[in-house]
Amino acid sequence: MRKIYVIGIGAGDPDHLTLQAAKAIGRTDVFFLLDKGEAKESMIELRRRIMKAYARPGRRVAEGRDPDRDRTPDDYQGTIADWRHRRSAVTEALISEHLLDDETGAFLVWGDPSLYDSTISILDEILARGETTFTYEVIPGISSVSTLAARHKIGLNRIGRPFQVTTGRRLAEEWPADVDDVVVMLDARQAFGAVDAQDVDIYWGAYLGTPDELLVSGPLAEVSDEIRRVRAEARERHGWIMDTYLLRRRDAG
Amino acid sequence: MRKIYVIGIGAGDPDHLTLQAAKAIGRTDVFFLLDKGEAKESMIELRRRIMKAYARPGRRVAEGRDPDRDRTPDDYQGTIADWRHRRSAVTEALISEHLLDDETGAFLVWGDPSLYDSTISILDEILARGETTFTYEVIPGISSVSTLAARHKIGLNRIGRPFQVTTGRRLAEEWPADVDDVVVMLDARQAFGAVDAQDVDIYWGAYLGTPDELLVSGPLAEVSDEIRRVRAEARERHGWIMDTYLLRRRDAG
Repeated sequence: MRKIYVIGIGAGDPDHLTLQAAKAIGRTDVFFLLDKGEAKESMIELRRRIMKAYARPGRRVAEGRDPDRDRTPDDYQGTIADWRHRRSAVTEALISEHLLDDETGAFLVWGDPSLYDSTISILDEILARGETTFTYEVIPGISSVSTLAARHKIGLNRIGRPFQVTTGRRLAEEWPADVDDVVVMLDARQAFGAVDAQDVDIYWGAYLGTPDELLVSGPLAEVSDEIRRVRAEARERHGWIMDTYLLRRRDAG
Repeated sequence: MRKIYVIGIGAGDPDHLTLQAAKAIGRTDVFFLLDKGEAKESMIELRRRIMKAYARPGRRVAEGRDPDRDRTPDDYQGTIADWRHRRSAVTEALISEHLLDDETGAFLVWGDPSLYDSTISILDEILARGETTFTYEVIPGISSVSTLAARHKIGLNRIGRPFQVTTGRRLAEEWPADVDDVVVMLDARQAFGAVDAQDVDIYWGAYLGTPDELLVSGPLAEVSDEIRRVRAEARERHGWIMDTYLLRRRDAG
């Protein structure tokens, strides 16, 4: 039986790798890489470093071309579902062509595979089709959200209270009901600008865990212009940006 | 200047330790242990194993007695705030008595320090009083929530959608507004029993990452009795239980 690891490798700091992840990487025969057209140098460099340090000699790399997708679709969920479907076809071809019987393959996933990542659902879709068979195992990783909280030295929740994790797209529509602590991911539009800034603090971070890490925090009304400026400069300099943030409503008091 | 690490050591699997955490443990002169009266054998054993493997010879251990607290208070937030306050006094005494100038101390925190843990706010409270000075750094860890998702091979979110992390206490009052995916922590009362089970799936786990790990998943209406039974037996056998779960409303249609 073929086996596949879905390995969370952390958000950017090579030392955020777990021992479990390092061991799984050392047992892998074939690494599957699905790269986006736009190369994200520092992320590719992290993966290269990790493989150099922990992968065994003789391991192979099977590369596929990540299908393109519309980045500003009208029907977001439909577009993503269609993209996942095309991606699963590419992935299935990679697995069936490159992974031999009794071999072990691996996908190295940024952050934690349970947070806004499609690898698990793509493997489930392939297995559901029933033509390519394998078992798979998920190895958790340090997410950008955990890294954000650690770097700002804050909890994600306040005592006994809930928090919500959502997307920039959703936040741009409205502040989620009945929560005062909101973690925002996948925000290409700086949706914090749509929020009523009064009594809200923001804890923002980009390139978390890397030498390029940027952190800004403070009252949203005071620092949102700074975040916009820092973000635009960094995006220009690096050619890409990955950021995440926590919005925290101050208690009336 | 004295330095303190707040180190997330994962929820139960020693291999969930990150390389960063292992290195920080190796640089620590004094480990601060605040143990609850009720000993949780397998958790103490995990900490012992980790220190044995990564701590340097000559490190010291400073133990304090965790203040008692009312486990079924009328005023939950007030009780916890009061308990944190007493806990910060014990913690401050430990630090000022045992950590010398230029030494490094560490708190080993279960899971991830950013999730329902009080260590960060206790250190902030001590620093705010201004009598004991130190710098501190937070090292993220693999949370029980990430481990739950990995073991069930699921994402915490669905495509482009939010999820909420809340407590059993809150869930017992009502299902959170406007979300279909709810992670529940600190549930001593099996609050999933208060949920309208129709069209809800549950992904439940206890002792996650340990050899005693228990996993149950399925339609809530079908498996809630099984979870109650498994949970009661395990609690009886081990003398304690730590569990967490995801509730996922199936889409109409």
